[in-house]
Amino acid sequence: MTCVVAGVDIGGTKTRVALCAPDLTVVDRLEVPTPAAAGGTAMVGAALDAVGQLLGRGDARLLGVGVGAAGVVDARTGRILVASDSFRDWAGFGVTAAVEAALGVPAFLDNDVNAFLRGEAAAGAVAGERQVLAMTLGTGVGGALWLDGTLYDGPHGAAGEIGHIPGFGGLPCTCGGRGHLETLASGRAIAARYGERTGRDLSAREVADAAAAGDPQARAVYEDAGAAVARAILVTAGLLDVTTVVIGGGVSRSWALLGPSVERALAAEPPVSGHPVRVLPAGLGGDAVAVGAAARARAELTEICEA
Amino acid sequence: MTCVVAGVDIGGTKTRVALCAPDLTVVDRLEVPTPAAAGGTAMVGAALDAVGQLLGRGDARLLGVGVGAAGVVDARTGRILVASDSFRDWAGFGVTAAVEAALGVPAFLDNDVNAFLRGEAAAGAVAGERQVLAMTLGTGVGGALWLDGTLYDGPHGAAGEIGHIPGFGGLPCTCGGRGHLETLASGRAIAARYGERTGRDLSAREVADAAAAGDPQARAVYEDAGAAVARAILVTAGLLDVTTVVIGGGVSRSWALLGPSVERALAAEPPVSGHPVRVLPAGLGGDAVAVGAAARARAELTEICEA
Repeated sequence: MTCVVAGVDIGGTKTRVALCAPDLTVVDRLEVPTPAAAGGTAMVGAALDAVGQLLGRGDARLLGVGVGAAGVVDARTGRILVASDSFRDWAGFGVTAAVEAALGVPAFLDNDVNAFLRGEAAAGAVAGERQVLAMTLGTGVGGALWLDGTLYDGPHGAAGEIGHIPGFGGLPCTCGGRGHLETLASGRAIAARYGERTGRDLSAREVADAAAAGDPQARAVYEDAGAAVARAILVTAGLLDVTTVVIGGGVSRSWALLGPSVERALAAEPPVSGHPVRVLPAGLGGDAVAVGAAARARAELTEICEA
Repeated sequence: MTCVVAGVDIGGTKTRVALCAPDLTVVDRLEVPTPAAAGGTAMVGAALDAVGQLLGRGDARLLGVGVGAAGVVDARTGRILVASDSFRDWAGFGVTAAVEAALGVPAFLDNDVNAFLRGEAAAGAVAGERQVLAMTLGTGVGGALWLDGTLYDGPHGAAGEIGHIPGFGGLPCTCGGRGHLETLASGRAIAARYGERTGRDLSAREVADAAAAGDPQARAVYEDAGAAVARAILVTAGLLDVTTVVIGGGVSRSWALLGPSVERALAAEPPVSGHPVRVLPAGLGGDAVAVGAAARARAELTEICEA
């Protein structure tokens, strides 16, 4: 009998579960809708059903479960602290307690951006690296830090909030601040900045398509996004001496557009330290958060699985 | 017989040596000119002479020596890597080897800003804190990080370079970049910004005196410096979740002027995390680097001193 850990990625619309071998290879996966409006019990229930379905397909023994969830989480107590309004009865929900009660194995909870970085550092684009900045360019901008080969989340679990650091112009941010990275580099910002330039209402992905087709306004919006990402990299490299960056989230899927704009900005303004920075797109695609959640569980589990 | 560690602060013009008890209390100190133009052997020789004079005043037994020096240093090999032009034969100099050969006790080398933070964290304004950003506002701006109760200097020893992160306007920096913190918050910048506004050639200290006397241009220059320091604090708090900041260097001696301007900017734009940041002036005055160098030596030494 083989042993597995389950990684669960609870997103706003979809929940993905991956069963991973102890080496974090994904042996099976399943994606189900997230019943966000039905509350925490239903959301964790949907994830548990998916885990059960995956286990029923084979004869693997489950060693533990890792969960990655959006919002502010308490990784120590396994509880959601702050959730967006689209989730009902989620803030305050004890995720790991519910999973452990249902499955009888240890469970662990991480913020989804931290889980993304754990996944990429364990088995993705930055596997084996010891100092990494992760950025997720989705609807908003998230960040996470890997220092000396381990996740650094700070005394309140709030480290890595690169989307809301100032120094990126003066546009108003969704958080109420101004000039944050998120005002230029999120998917929502790319759509908004393009709309301001052209009056057209396109998604970030459609702006990328327009840029690929030669639209100069669309190109300019991605150039600004890339320059902002490069500035955030310079800030982090200056403060922390990190030399590797992994970028995920929906916007990063337009890497042929974003990657060169980041590289151009870094070539024009290299790190003061003289140490070059490698910038990589995410390597695990849609599995990154689930694999990272599984990686956390694997790392915490002391039990050795004999195949 | 009591035991002591010696802390040595080799600055551009003065070298300060402090003999410290194992609890880092300064039991005696001496300041001598730094023979910067005479080369590394002469500079370390002057420091060793000062250590010898201090030891000759009592009967303490020397356990080890810590040295803090400006420039880029290799804390692992005890060697100076990059030094300013005012120091002759200093880049490449093996500081700890020279000290150990002369005194027969273990020696350790740190960058002066890192030593400043070690001192303040061991026995100064942020004693006992586990997450700290240190800034030194001198001729230039230096930075250092204390994460989880230990100095974080990054994989190349280059972490903490907060003086040269972008996002602070567009003025040219001494390093060749633009819009770095140093263009607004260093002593040199305060003098330059005041000169641009008024055509008058004052030192940063004299600008502070003018501000205290009601000069609105001088007040505006310090207000800009404080706002820039606050922005650097927000960036660091966002990335690292640090909640304590200690500020040293010559500019910080005008704390009655600088402190309130930093606090006003942080009140207008608080950290997104919701966790407040405490901002403190340095507590050890001119002893901080020497005490911090001694703290490094004390921490590295395994020998227990029996009084």
